[in-house]
Amino acid sequence: MPSFSDRLADAVRRKGPLCVGIDPRWEMLPKRIRVSTEIVDDYARPSLGFLRFQARLLELIQPFAGIVKPQAAFYELIGSTGLNAMRRVLELAKEMGFVTILDAKRGDIASTADAYAQAAFGPTWNADALTINPYLGRDAVEPFLTAAKAGQRGVFVLVRTSNAGAGLFQDLPCNGRPLYRHVADEVVKWNARALGACGLGDVGAVVGATHPRELAELRTAMRHVWFLVPGYGAQGASAADVKAAYLPSGLGAVVNSSRGVTFPFHPDDPQWEAKIVEAAKKAAAELAH
Amino acid sequence: MPSFSDRLADAVRRKGPLCVGIDPRWEMLPKRIRVSTEIVDDYARPSLGFLRFQARLLELIQPFAGIVKPQAAFYELIGSTGLNAMRRVLELAKEMGFVTILDAKRGDIASTADAYAQAAFGPTWNADALTINPYLGRDAVEPFLTAAKAGQRGVFVLVRTSNAGAGLFQDLPCNGRPLYRHVADEVVKWNARALGACGLGDVGAVVGATHPRELAELRTAMRHVWFLVPGYGAQGASAADVKAAYLPSGLGAVVNSSRGVTFPFHPDDPQWEAKIVEAAKKAAAELAH
Repeated sequence: MPSFSDRLADAVRRKGPLCVGIDPRWEMLPKRIRVSTEIVDDYARPSLGFLRFQARLLELIQPFAGIVKPQAAFYELIGSTGLNAMRRVLELAKEMGFVTILDAKRGDIASTADAYAQAAFGPTWNADALTINPYLGRDAVEPFLTAAKAGQRGVFVLVRTSNAGAGLFQDLPCNGRPLYRHVADEVVKWNARALGACGLGDVGAVVGATHPRELAELRTAMRHVWFLVPGYGAQGASAADVKAAYLPSGLGAVVNSSRGVTFPFHPDDPQWEAKIVEAAKKAAAELAH
Repeated sequence: MPSFSDRLADAVRRKGPLCVGIDPRWEMLPKRIRVSTEIVDDYARPSLGFLRFQARLLELIQPFAGIVKPQAAFYELIGSTGLNAMRRVLELAKEMGFVTILDAKRGDIASTADAYAQAAFGPTWNADALTINPYLGRDAVEPFLTAAKAGQRGVFVLVRTSNAGAGLFQDLPCNGRPLYRHVADEVVKWNARALGACGLGDVGAVVGATHPRELAELRTAMRHVWFLVPGYGAQGASAADVKAAYLPSGLGAVVNSSRGVTFPFHPDDPQWEAKIVEAAKKAAAELAH
């Protein structure tokens, strides 16, 4: 199996940089799907709804995106049956040739981090990559790096997030440079151990599109690091805002859109499938470069 | 229902500061319990083992501890049936009068953080408190604070963690003070909105026992903040190392021990229950003050 970075490069070359974030919410599912779940008891209805919606979603977006990013929080919210649905979306997406990024932003001390890493890359979730939080430091990140390397998987470390209040700690000046630049320096070191044939490594960075200046700075500082770029679409950043994330090769960044592509419809709209196709097509075209 | 901080104060007054961390691992369960799960298929065996072990564990530790802290990673590792076992340990512990802290170290942008908060405090997990990671900043923490306040629950924000490499980012000097002190200042502000009758608030801090000097400093800087103190026991800190975490009232800190109390035996040992009682009794006595 090629390295994670090479599989990601292949997906971007084939389909472009669009990554579709899968954040299912029961109340936003098409009404027809919600009604169709009445065959099971109330506890199981949300997860059956998720299963049906995500299976159709993957088919609809497949021409336009090579990468998907299920968000663990929304599956966890509906309980353990939801986590079965999460397992299934990761499995199905992999079968369909998508690169899968599990967005769970895990982080804990070593033995616990190891359990999260085994869950992410082992039989439980079997994702191609996982998002992780760096606050606990090196020995908390290490188990994720080790497990990723052993299984040819990847991680994306939070560096500069897309939310409005991200700067509270991330922008604090530490020894003359903002905290996120120190995190970025560590990511560069961690990544240097595992470069693929595409010239990029398996240890990526989450860098929000909502901060174009920082994005450009980080691109220069992190020449061999894949960026996972949230913030495009519903969160307000434009395709122009993310341009700085790409390397001259055209690789270097995957750009996430969640609600903008997966829920561009009112639940009552019978044309919801066409709306998803239209939104995915538009996002893919905007991001083509 | 009294506030989270007052329920925690009540537990500490009744039973002392010991918090038992529940980090179940299939390979560490008593062999008798593992064998007893052969009645179900291989996929369900770990979760049945967890259910049996944790139910007995809660009975054994009940005389010595009023607080338990299940660790989400170990439940997640065995898949969605594991998360049923996590739901059950939280439910059973609550029925038995324990204060429950779900250790999941969640953190994400606002809408996602809200989903994690609803999962933690709503019907999915229904925990009394949740550990959270501050790296994403204020608007990422806010949904947890709001949900905690609405449901009389608590959060523990990672400030200074117990792992050896915690200092990589947490100790970086930012405007002349280490990063963790800036996080501590924010926790003090967040906590000030919700003080209970015990004089402490619902927004606590995770401060490792493995850094006694920082623990003492933070105690002085955070007079109304509950500390959740990991690192005692298997991680190497002694009862003397944690003394600085207490306020003159005797309240102010809960001290976690996980493996030291829950797995003080070899899996083949038929006396495993007596070993747990002995370990819990010893920890409670050491921590009494």
